[in-house]
Amino acid sequence: MIKTPYLLFLGDAPDALAAKVAQGIKDWRPEFAVGQYRMEGCNADMGVPDMGLAEAKAAGVKTMVIGVANRGGFITDSWKEVLIAALNEGFDLASGLHNLLRDEPDLVAAAEANGCTLHDVRVPSVDYPIANGVKRKGKRCLAVGTDCSVGKMYTAMAMEGTMRERGMKATFRATGQTGILVTGGGVPLDAVIADFMAGSVEWLTPDNDDDHWDLIEGQGSLFHVSYSGVTMALVHGGQPDALILCHEPTRAHMRGLPDYQQPSLEDLRDTALHLAKVGNPACQVVGISVNTQHMSEADAVSYMAEVEARMGLPTVDPFRHGAERLVDALAAI
Amino acid sequence: MIKTPYLLFLGDAPDALAAKVAQGIKDWRPEFAVGQYRMEGCNADMGVPDMGLAEAKAAGVKTMVIGVANRGGFITDSWKEVLIAALNEGFDLASGLHNLLRDEPDLVAAAEANGCTLHDVRVPSVDYPIANGVKRKGKRCLAVGTDCSVGKMYTAMAMEGTMRERGMKATFRATGQTGILVTGGGVPLDAVIADFMAGSVEWLTPDNDDDHWDLIEGQGSLFHVSYSGVTMALVHGGQPDALILCHEPTRAHMRGLPDYQQPSLEDLRDTALHLAKVGNPACQVVGISVNTQHMSEADAVSYMAEVEARMGLPTVDPFRHGAERLVDALAAI
Repeated sequence: MIKTPYLLFLGDAPDALAAKVAQGIKDWRPEFAVGQYRMEGCNADMGVPDMGLAEAKAAGVKTMVIGVANRGGFITDSWKEVLIAALNEGFDLASGLHNLLRDEPDLVAAAEANGCTLHDVRVPSVDYPIANGVKRKGKRCLAVGTDCSVGKMYTAMAMEGTMRERGMKATFRATGQTGILVTGGGVPLDAVIADFMAGSVEWLTPDNDDDHWDLIEGQGSLFHVSYSGVTMALVHGGQPDALILCHEPTRAHMRGLPDYQQPSLEDLRDTALHLAKVGNPACQVVGISVNTQHMSEADAVSYMAEVEARMGLPTVDPFRHGAERLVDALAAI
Repeated sequence: MIKTPYLLFLGDAPDALAAKVAQGIKDWRPEFAVGQYRMEGCNADMGVPDMGLAEAKAAGVKTMVIGVANRGGFITDSWKEVLIAALNEGFDLASGLHNLLRDEPDLVAAAEANGCTLHDVRVPSVDYPIANGVKRKGKRCLAVGTDCSVGKMYTAMAMEGTMRERGMKATFRATGQTGILVTGGGVPLDAVIADFMAGSVEWLTPDNDDDHWDLIEGQGSLFHVSYSGVTMALVHGGQPDALILCHEPTRAHMRGLPDYQQPSLEDLRDTALHLAKVGNPACQVVGISVNTQHMSEADAVSYMAEVEARMGLPTVDPFRHGAERLVDALAAI
């Protein structure tokens, strides 16, 4: 686990979009976002206090999180200066950058000198077991998509937020780098070795209270030929009691695959449920999450009404209209 | 690729079972098995000439393959002596042992001194791409199982053998360590990083002649919760034109999973075909391979007749009765 709370390093982010990770922390774990560190030329602002390193230390910060993508794929000298100063202040560093902190000798040296940890969340740091399929206590919900990048993480995060507001026991379980940085822990599933994928998901969602829900972050799609194996490991390793179908209706083709079309929601429902029942015969499909960001309000509302009538399942865009009805559906099983 | 032909290192194999890899080479690629090297106490015999290292060199051997499992999981001093002598003779070494050749400093030093290569086939040696799903030329057949270890490799090997006898263009494509050592190349799929699994299968089965068949070695099972993600990557990365269903009828439960039962052949057929059609809409299920090793001849014959009548597909045990009818079915599509 990454120690919290965080100082959000925004570097010289050219715009808000480049600071997506920091924004995720601010949105979903505001209690972790004690302050932000901005360098000259930074055009992103998370709306949290700007802090120097000493000030952040005094405010209780434990880790500086690199909340911004780096241009050009390397860690610049100007960033390096701040990162080393942060280590000298005693902060751990956490990063989801492609180029790893651990591959920078000066950062490694400064971390060692100060007894600090470098977290590269793209790389697994645990020797995961092979899945044993043993039934676990507690409940699990998995978001599965007609395609990649259709809002599975957002859906699970929004559901966790709503459930916590209601006093339900709920934990978002991150399986990608952004989710890991936001919540401080998880499994970088796309970087796990094939034989251990399902085992890593079992590890991530262990026995829990009978009334506790894990909201497992989905990855890929059973219908996306590049990544379907990763999705399959979530469906079986996760032993979900509930599936949420996630869909983006305006895609011309599967993401990155011009010759492939998205499956119907009916096909996703039947295929995912059949496979999920191998691991958990009691699994149910409980709702549909539609990403309507490219639709007008009127189009979104009428599209979702049509889907809801056709499928007989609560159908919402949690970003537009909240996750309440999805949580109602979970609470009912 | 591992250079051929081979000298089969049998070490001090206590029995024939310990020399399974060497036996596979002898059975499926006899032309690679120029000779065997046996140490004192060896109780295995592949029926090929015993050779010393110099003699093997003179016979044209390029690689010494460790054809035997090591007791205790470490490379003993007595083995080491032979392995170093082989490197000094100019042979490459190839191994599927859990403990890697490359982790033994004296083997690394001897390999470097002699310009030889150490092949640890459990570990990927290629940076595989992410799968792009582009339709490839040539044809592909994939064996899928109701469970793990039901005879998928044997089925594909036997079909390749029959096809070559008939003058058909056919290549067994190894996805596990034994198959890689037998054929000299392949992908150790269970050790590939999740994001690259399907891409590694695409890499393994590239464009080919229109009348060429890849016989892709299956792994795991879509119904085995520990390994289903690996199977899924084969189903999508392999773009199979034909599926062979593999089954072992006497299992009390799924391998290693006491609480899980095997699916029916009907369920395997429908589930695997539906998923395979995502990558190749023309895919067909063409036959059934039954592993009847734990059944009497009479029971085997009557069981297969019942399955064939029920499923309407040629149903054989290729070990008992040959792969002719499976190849007939492939040739017909």
